[in-house]
Amino acid sequence: MSHMQGWAVQQAGQPLVLTAFDLGPLGAEEVEVAVDYCGICHSDLSMINNEWGTASFPFVPGHEVIGRVSALGAQAKGLKIGQRVGVGWTAATCMHCHQCLSGHQNLCAQLLPTIGGGHQGGFADKVRSHWAWAVPLPDGIDLASAGPLLCGGITVLRPFLAYEISPTARVGVVGIGGLGHMALKFAKAWGCEVTAFTSNAAKAGEARAFGAHHVVDSRDPKAIRGMAGTLDLLLATVNVPLDWAALMGTLAPLGRMHVVGAVMEPIPVSVFTLMLGEREVSSSPTGSPIDIATMLDFATRHDIRPQVEMFPMGSVNEALKHLAEGKARYRIVLEA
Amino acid sequence: MSHMQGWAVQQAGQPLVLTAFDLGPLGAEEVEVAVDYCGICHSDLSMINNEWGTASFPFVPGHEVIGRVSALGAQAKGLKIGQRVGVGWTAATCMHCHQCLSGHQNLCAQLLPTIGGGHQGGFADKVRSHWAWAVPLPDGIDLASAGPLLCGGITVLRPFLAYEISPTARVGVVGIGGLGHMALKFAKAWGCEVTAFTSNAAKAGEARAFGAHHVVDSRDPKAIRGMAGTLDLLLATVNVPLDWAALMGTLAPLGRMHVVGAVMEPIPVSVFTLMLGEREVSSSPTGSPIDIATMLDFATRHDIRPQVEMFPMGSVNEALKHLAEGKARYRIVLEA
Repeated sequence: MSHMQGWAVQQAGQPLVLTAFDLGPLGAEEVEVAVDYCGICHSDLSMINNEWGTASFPFVPGHEVIGRVSALGAQAKGLKIGQRVGVGWTAATCMHCHQCLSGHQNLCAQLLPTIGGGHQGGFADKVRSHWAWAVPLPDGIDLASAGPLLCGGITVLRPFLAYEISPTARVGVVGIGGLGHMALKFAKAWGCEVTAFTSNAAKAGEARAFGAHHVVDSRDPKAIRGMAGTLDLLLATVNVPLDWAALMGTLAPLGRMHVVGAVMEPIPVSVFTLMLGEREVSSSPTGSPIDIATMLDFATRHDIRPQVEMFPMGSVNEALKHLAEGKARYRIVLEA
Repeated sequence: MSHMQGWAVQQAGQPLVLTAFDLGPLGAEEVEVAVDYCGICHSDLSMINNEWGTASFPFVPGHEVIGRVSALGAQAKGLKIGQRVGVGWTAATCMHCHQCLSGHQNLCAQLLPTIGGGHQGGFADKVRSHWAWAVPLPDGIDLASAGPLLCGGITVLRPFLAYEISPTARVGVVGIGGLGHMALKFAKAWGCEVTAFTSNAAKAGEARAFGAHHVVDSRDPKAIRGMAGTLDLLLATVNVPLDWAALMGTLAPLGRMHVVGAVMEPIPVSVFTLMLGEREVSSSPTGSPIDIATMLDFATRHDIRPQVEMFPMGSVNEALKHLAEGKARYRIVLEA
C-alpha cells in the first residue's frame, strides 16, 4: 500500500513528470484515498512556481481530490473502506490545540497542507490525509465536478458561515474565475442579491447564468462609484492589486470586504472609510472539516456544481498551461 | 431662549473668543441643555486646526457635555425640564433612514455633529441637540468626570458591544491617553485580560492602576513580537501611523484589530496575516443613543470614571494648550 505514482514538480516552474513515491507505512490516524478526480486550483500553480517560497521539491500538486477510501490507519475514525470522500487544502492538523479542539482545525498552527511540507498531493493515483480531513461526500453529489468545491468552494463559502451572512444581504463578488464563479452560485443559492465585478465583458452573460443579478465593469470607476454604500459583503477573489479604495466604497454601513485571493501586496485601508460606516476587512483560509461537510450538503441540496473542463490526468501539463494562460472556464478537473 | 454665549474659534488654529450666538427658535424635536461640564476631546483640537477640512468658522467646540435640560421642543420625547443628560459627538440624525430605524443612528448619512455643519458645541452656556441625542444620565454617576464618557468612552466601548467581546478575551490597548486610559478601565471591568501598549514608560504604573495586567513598550519590536498570536481584540486609540504589521502580529486566530484613532494615512494590511488566522480589521464611530445609555449604566455600575483634570470654562485656551502639548492626564473637563 505504500507506493504511489504521481505527477511531480522537480524544480520550480518545470513540467510535471510521472514519478513513483514510497509513502512509507500508513500512519495510525491516516487514511489513503484512491483518486478518481482532482481539481486544479490557482494555488497549485503558485506552488509549482514557488511564488510563496514554501515549496519543497519534488512534490505532487493537487488538493481538490474526489476519491474512495482505500486504506485506514488503526485509529482512523468514522470512515469505511470504499467510502466516497473529498480531500482539500489541508491534509492534517494536530487535533489537540486550542483551534483544533474549538472546531477551527483549519487555523491549526501545525496545519500540514496537502501539497506542502513533504506531503504529496492529488495529481496521483492515491493521496493520504488525516481521517478528519477526508470528508465524506453526500449522496447525490456530482463526483466529476465536485473536486473544486473542496478548496475553492469552501474558500468562498466560509465567510457566509463565519459571519452568518443573511439571505437578505447584498453581496458583491470581485473576479469571475475559479473562485468567483462558485461564489456567484453560492451567493445566489444563499438567497442574496448578487453583483459580479469583472474586467472581462465577455464573462457578463455567464456571470448572470451563475447567479449574478447585476454585472459591473471592475475597470470602470464610475460604475463602481454607482454601487457606493450598497454592499453588505464584498468578496474579493482575485490575487492582483485592485482599486481597493473604490471597492471599499461600495460597502454599506456595517459592510465587510472579505479577501480570499492570495494578494501579496498589502492592501491600503482607509480608517475613515471603515470608521464612518463601522465597516470591516477580513480574510480566511478554506474551512474546517465541518465547514466542508456543511458546504457539500448545501451544494448538493442546491445542485451547485463548479463549471469544469475535464482533462485526463496524463494531460496535466496541458491543463496547467491552459490555466496559466487564463483560459480555464472556470475550473479544471483531472480525471484519473 | 435663543441666545448662547460660547467660546468660538474664528479662524483655524486661533485662540477661542467668548462670543454671543443667536441660535434662533428651538426646533420641534430639539432640546436645549444648560452646560455644567464639557470634556475636551482630541477631535476638538483637530477641528479647531481644521485638520480634516470640514470645519466652518466661527464655531464653538466641545462635544462631551454634561448638563440639564433647560428647554424642550414641542415634539421632544422622553425628557423633562431639569433632567440630567449628556450630549456627545452627535447632535442630530434623521431618525427615519435605514440606519436610524435599525438602531444604528450613529451611522446615519445625515448625521449632524455637535461641532460641525454650523452647529455650536459645548464650550458654552448651553448646547442644543435632537432629543434622542440628549442621553439621560443614570443616578449615581459622577457628574464632574462623566463628560469624556460621552465621546471617548463610547468610542472605546462600542467594539465590545458591536462584536460581543467575551469577558474571557485577551484585549490589547495601544496608546494610553484620553481614549486609551478609558479603554483599560472598560476592558478590566468587562472581565478581560488587559495589555497596555505605550511608548511612554512613565505611564506604565498608571496603566496598571487603570486596569492593565501587562504593559508593553510599543516602540520595542521584540516586546511586541513576544505577544505574537495572543490577543483577541487589539484596540488602537492613537492617531499616528504605527508598526501595523507588528501590531497585527499580536492577534490570536480569529482576532480583531479595531482602530478608533483618527489615523489619516491608509493602514497597510497584509492579506496573509488576516487569512492565516481568519483575522479582521475594523473601525467604528462613537455609538448610538442606546449604546451610550448602556455604556453609562455599565460605567456607573463599575464606577468607571475618566481620570480628569478640571479647568474653569474661562481657561479653555490654557486647557487646549495643555492638551496640545500632550500633557493631559488623561482627559480635561471644563467646568461652567
